[in-house]
Amino acid sequence: MSAPTTPGPAVADLLGLVAFGELLAFERMAGDARLAPDLRRRATLNEMAAAEIGNYRRLADRLTELGVPPADAMAPYVVPLQAYHDSTEPRDWAEVVTKAYVGDAITDDFLREIAGTLNGPDRGLVLDVLHDSGYAEFAAAEIRTAVAADPRVAGRLSMWARRLVGEALSQAGRVAAERAALTALIGRGDRVDVPGLFGRLTTAHTARMAVVGLNN
Amino acid sequence: MSAPTTPGPAVADLLGLVAFGELLAFERMAGDARLAPDLRRRATLNEMAAAEIGNYRRLADRLTELGVPPADAMAPYVVPLQAYHDSTEPRDWAEVVTKAYVGDAITDDFLREIAGTLNGPDRGLVLDVLHDSGYAEFAAAEIRTAVAADPRVAGRLSMWARRLVGEALSQAGRVAAERAALTALIGRGDRVDVPGLFGRLTTAHTARMAVVGLNN
Repeated sequence: MSAPTTPGPAVADLLGLVAFGELLAFERMAGDARLAPDLRRRATLNEMAAAEIGNYRRLADRLTELGVPPADAMAPYVVPLQAYHDSTEPRDWAEVVTKAYVGDAITDDFLREIAGTLNGPDRGLVLDVLHDSGYAEFAAAEIRTAVAADPRVAGRLSMWARRLVGEALSQAGRVAAERAALTALIGRGDRVDVPGLFGRLTTAHTARMAVVGLNN
Repeated sequence: MSAPTTPGPAVADLLGLVAFGELLAFERMAGDARLAPDLRRRATLNEMAAAEIGNYRRLADRLTELGVPPADAMAPYVVPLQAYHDSTEPRDWAEVVTKAYVGDAITDDFLREIAGTLNGPDRGLVLDVLHDSGYAEFAAAEIRTAVAADPRVAGRLSMWARRLVGEALSQAGRVAAERAALTALIGRGDRVDVPGLFGRLTTAHTARMAVVGLNN
């Protein structure tokens, strides 16, 4: 059985997933800002959060253009994405920045992979909503500072990062089981390479952990 | 005793107040979005929130230009503004939109009044960070819908709006007592007209309440 390269409903499914991901990342990061140790860091986290909303607007506009109300395209992802965030509520600033660092990077890796399965404007749009690297550098610097101040923090944050990835994979599995068209798109039609995709995401994640002094 | 029209420290005081007001309005609106009855309204509230961050950035950049670290200029307002929001935590969507409607409009009226006391670039900046009227219309329409669906809601929201104004005035009094330079600026040097200012803000607020079917 061979799926077309960019089936219409699958594209709306994907854009809906990314759009709701942005919306929720926005809300959660804004909510986490109160854990910042000072106003400068608090403002920076809020600015990171706000960047997600500009991307949300572009994805919502594209969905409208495709004739799909953004709310309809996002609806299937409310429960799993909410569950991810509810189960990974940061307790302090180090957990906040680690969550932003891990989550943004895995999301971007996933989007870069998936962009290759899309045509023209949707490919460009998905590549455009990748996170600004300045924010990743801010989060990485904050993690390094926390680890330098207290080496025991490295163990706790390493465990936290594993939990973030575990919860994300668990919800991704749930989405994959329920959204056949999306899964087919991610699997690139008949060249299903989902295990390869997960392998690449994991390898990149491990490398990023090492960069900030955490263990996978 | 006559204060200069735009004393340097008073301007930084004012910009710090507005900047932290934007930052906190952003966080709180983003936090309130989960109370939205559907994804469309949730996204709209988040977009309203995100607009505050763009304004925050402009104010912070201006403070930096004036040689004042934004965090220093904002620090005096953390306790009173936080107290305002802690004492006015909305319990449902109708309270969320009423808080946005009331708070944004009073803030804008205050900024329009205060802009007259500032010179050149700061006057332009303060007038530029006024809220987009499209968002006020969204909030007003949501209040009217809530009141139309259940007329008893009007009484509850009228009381809620009075509480919002009462808490805001209480914290404003606290700020005024502690920040002499800011108060002098608001009082326009030797032509102190603070009672007149409060009178005008209250009159405009009452008119806005009537427009959405609420009583003052």
